[in-house]
Amino acid sequence: MAEGSDDIQALIALMARLPGLGPRSARRVVLHLIRKRSGQMTQLARLLESVATSSRECLTCGNITDRDTCAICADPARANGEICVVEDVADLWALERGHAFRGRYHILGGTLSALDEIGPEDLGIPALIDRIRRDNIREVILALNATVEGQTTAHYILDALPDSNVTVTGLAQGVPIGGELDYLDDGTISAALRARRRF
Amino acid sequence: MAEGSDDIQALIALMARLPGLGPRSARRVVLHLIRKRSGQMTQLARLLESVATSSRECLTCGNITDRDTCAICADPARANGEICVVEDVADLWALERGHAFRGRYHILGGTLSALDEIGPEDLGIPALIDRIRRDNIREVILALNATVEGQTTAHYILDALPDSNVTVTGLAQGVPIGGELDYLDDGTISAALRARRRF
Repeated sequence: MAEGSDDIQALIALMARLPGLGPRSARRVVLHLIRKRSGQMTQLARLLESVATSSRECLTCGNITDRDTCAICADPARANGEICVVEDVADLWALERGHAFRGRYHILGGTLSALDEIGPEDLGIPALIDRIRRDNIREVILALNATVEGQTTAHYILDALPDSNVTVTGLAQGVPIGGELDYLDDGTISAALRARRRF
Repeated sequence: MAEGSDDIQALIALMARLPGLGPRSARRVVLHLIRKRSGQMTQLARLLESVATSSRECLTCGNITDRDTCAICADPARANGEICVVEDVADLWALERGHAFRGRYHILGGTLSALDEIGPEDLGIPALIDRIRRDNIREVILALNATVEGQTTAHYILDALPDSNVTVTGLAQGVPIGGELDYLDDGTISAALRARRRF
């Protein structure tokens, strides 16, 4: 037993399964924590316990929250008639960090996949259509990933939306801010050229 | 508040301070854990709490353990007259993974440093000399890092050891297993050439 105690070994094994960590970095993290066992480690244990107990999905949009309704769905200022459809909570977090969107979200929790037997109900698409009808939504922004799966799902939603005066939009495709043309893939360059705009 | 709740944000901030993690990877890890909140996350919280409570330093060698005396110091088979001096618990773990050393350890917990006011007492060097006298040690292996600080500390220990029939050795320096000469630094190549051996 190289690493001190059974619990330490179990902790390293568990840490090594986290995304982006492996056995080497897990050992480093655990040793760092053991050195700070009375402060950082105890605090981390308590926060993990607390978040594990209190976290749940917002009943309206699927966002991670500690209440029935997340802070975004509960904020009356965000009932501006816009709803942004994302694949994942991580995408919602990314959009919120951008501070550009002031409406509400709908989290699909994945993309349509015949192979994995993920259908429209698994993604809450009927619930989305209900929300659009009920909440007087004017614009639906399909902020799905620019992958085949994301775009297939976007087209499915587009077809499934009721005929009404809801505008459906997607994120612009083009050169990322700070991006150098030389390093961009051909598809992005072509898309940016086709969608060129006047100065 | 982009990330769900105050606790989630605090958890991400705490995770981002772990070695090798930053804000982006901390968010990824926390989201992964929230998805597995009833299993992996609760288990991680409990193990962290348990390791934080039970971990302490072995009174003899400084290894991390959950008892007064670590498994290595308690194992009579390892009283073979050899003691291996390392800077850090991570170095002990690395040596144990190599399965080549069957004696006991002494962890310094750092290197001598005038700048940081770390003297021989802070590294337990007097205690090491006591152990060498008391435990009939035949060989002291100074497995310190091949850095200036590590080598300075090694020379200090060498001078401080009592005149006796204790053999003092250091790790061999040379080409790492699987190493390509082309990618090695000049110092290592020169050291390997000077320490060349007959086939």
